Amino acid sequence: MHYNSPQPTPAGALVFTTVLTRGPLSRVEIGELTGLSSATVTKATRPFLDNGYLVEEPAEDPSGRGRPRSPLAIRADREFFLGVKVTAAELIAVVTDLRAGVRATTRRPLPECTPEAVVPAIATLVEELLTEPGRRARVRTLGVAVSGDIDRATGVVRSSPFLGWTQVDLAAQLHAATGLSVLVENDVKALTAAERWFGSGLGASSFALVTLGTGVGCGLVVNGALVAGAHGVAGELGHVPVVPDGPRCPCGRTGCVEAVAAERAIVARASEVAGTPLTLAEAVAKARSGNEPLREVFAQAGHAIGLGLAALANLVGPERIVVSGEGLAAYDLIGENLRQTFTAHAFGAASRCTLELRPLSFEDWARGAAVVGIEALLSPT
Amino acid sequence: MHYNSPQPTPAGALVFTTVLTRGPLSRVEIGELTGLSSATVTKATRPFLDNGYLVEEPAEDPSGRGRPRSPLAIRADREFFLGVKVTAAELIAVVTDLRAGVRATTRRPLPECTPEAVVPAIATLVEELLTEPGRRARVRTLGVAVSGDIDRATGVVRSSPFLGWTQVDLAAQLHAATGLSVLVENDVKALTAAERWFGSGLGASSFALVTLGTGVGCGLVVNGALVAGAHGVAGELGHVPVVPDGPRCPCGRTGCVEAVAAERAIVARASEVAGTPLTLAEAVAKARSGNEPLREVFAQAGHAIGLGLAALANLVGPERIVVSGEGLAAYDLIGENLRQTFTAHAFGAASRCTLELRPLSFEDWARGAAVVGIEALLSPT
Ligand SMILES: [Zn+2]
Ligand SMILES: [Zn+2]
Repeated sequence: MHYNSPQPTPAGALVFTTVLTRGPLSRVEIGELTGLSSATVTKATRPFLDNGYLVEEPAEDPSGRGRPRSPLAIRADREFFLGVKVTAAELIAVVTDLRAGVRATTRRPLPECTPEAVVPAIATLVEELLTEPGRRARVRTLGVAVSGDIDRATGVVRSSPFLGWTQVDLAAQLHAATGLSVLVENDVKALTAAERWFGSGLGASSFALVTLGTGVGCGLVVNGALVAGAHGVAGELGHVPVVPDGPRCPCGRTGCVEAVAAERAIVARASEVAGTPLTLAEAVAKARSGNEPLREVFAQAGHAIGLGLAALANLVGPERIVVSGEGLAAYDLIGENLRQTFTAHAFGAASRCTLELRPLSFEDWARGAAVVGIEALLSPT
Repeated sequence: MHYNSPQPTPAGALVFTTVLTRGPLSRVEIGELTGLSSATVTKATRPFLDNGYLVEEPAEDPSGRGRPRSPLAIRADREFFLGVKVTAAELIAVVTDLRAGVRATTRRPLPECTPEAVVPAIATLVEELLTEPGRRARVRTLGVAVSGDIDRATGVVRSSPFLGWTQVDLAAQLHAATGLSVLVENDVKALTAAERWFGSGLGASSFALVTLGTGVGCGLVVNGALVAGAHGVAGELGHVPVVPDGPRCPCGRTGCVEAVAAERAIVARASEVAGTPLTLAEAVAKARSGNEPLREVFAQAGHAIGLGLAALANLVGPERIVVSGEGLAAYDLIGENLRQTFTAHAFGAASRCTLELRPLSFEDWARGAAVVGIEALLSPT
């Protein structure tokens, strides 16, 4: 199989994205949704039809009333995408099709998480997934999701505190090890891209994805695109100052959301309150069994997150906020305060922003990495 | 003169906006800046040329090296725009050309600010500005800037606390009184539109305009467009919770930026600290002459604004924040804390966001209202 990329124009990318996220659609419907003329739609779709990414469906309802005539549809299995999520303890990998449908998943524990250990481990996982019949010929892109500060353009992990990495040229190393085209992205941004096109963000003019766990992450979509930050920083909900005279955050500042609501902060405060070192699981168990001082530690975490979400809603006004992450496991302990505080501080109609809880598995994160590859396919040239 | 609107397509609006904000430009340069094909550029410019909004300039440098050949330029005096800013005490009006260049200004005190008094007063101002020779024939749009919650689509002032207005169909009343096409917009949004196209926001991928005064306002441009908020609320910097157990805000919540930093809040706290009722001017004078408790009141206001700006920078990452408004007059008293707090809480590269101080006159606000008319000219049909 030859890889003739469609190499879309801006109009081509717009048309294909519209069919990808809302299709099948007739050319007339595409024109209505995009505001493009029918000549432009026809011209823009041609490279995708020629290269097999789009296919003309037979009109199923000849009366023309029930369904559009000859709608254009995505050929979901035209190309497959690999996605890997790297955590400190484990690799999680998926194969998706062009519509981000998961076709296979696999995991591999990491005895250590140095780049020297992670790169060959990813290469082995990739090889394993590609041996499946018919797959190798349809895969050319590997997306990798890593927490931390990532330079997506160069595929360099500038800094990943949880992995202990600084300035790792991960894309180059993985390209050498696998021969694939490799894209590296911040894990929360990758997940946001997936939710935007194939999840809760679909159809929302603006939305935020918030992840609770070791850190408090946030991906933000406004005016139709991810908010990247002019200086590379945006969505740092974890470091919005909400308790200005509050505890010190690992980032060095005081009163950040993470200084109260990140796992480490909760564990530290719970141990202090209990007068003995506790694990997170122990703190959760004791709080659930009614220990009031420990319940208050979780309540304060919920309060801090609620303040951060209110700041987000008042400034940006998203249609919807999706809250997810491993921290959701303790949502019974933080949720009530989170919602109360959000409602108390969201300004006017901003409080109509939906707070949606969505458990996400590690496979969902790996799928996000694969979607980075799907996105790249559509970057206008 | 006939008013044949160019009625632009989306491509036409993009091309015209590009020439308006960055021209004169050759068609080739327009193609490069917009990513549109040369055929599309040629087709998109035609209605603007036909209707006299664009003009083909003679090539000034026949060698073709120094300047582009036959660049397209705006005919700034093709149409004039009226803009009025309504305050509780005064109307300020301007006439601008198509590039937002101010051609005339006038003011008129308001003995009272009921709609019954304001509508005829605006009509009188408009009549005064239109009697200038050659003007009436070139004006068809009146933009009006009002503080508060405005439904721009219908021109209804839903609520303007500073004017004491609720549900006033201002556009309809002014259309009846003047015969002009009337657009009503929130004053901070109007000013943001003007700064985006013709001011500090020009060329910035994202920026925020912050106004300090009776309230703390904020207009936000991200991914190329004003952030409107999915539920109509965005840029509510004044109601970001920064001192959660702090004073009550006029909005009813606690700890908002405005609860500490709005003029009323400063006056109330200064009077409390001084043990006697003070005006803002008196509080400023005493603080400037070295009264430490009063200096601290202003410092706390600067601190609260700095926290709000840090939240904004960490969440949205604008390239630039322009700080303006009448409150700037006391900037010597609030500025140091504002900057210190912003720097202390801006996360990583977000601290590279430029804080720019810009005094703005009431005429600038009226010019913002006129720019709403210029924008409307370009709304794709
Ligand atoms: Zn922090
Ligand atoms: Zn408030």
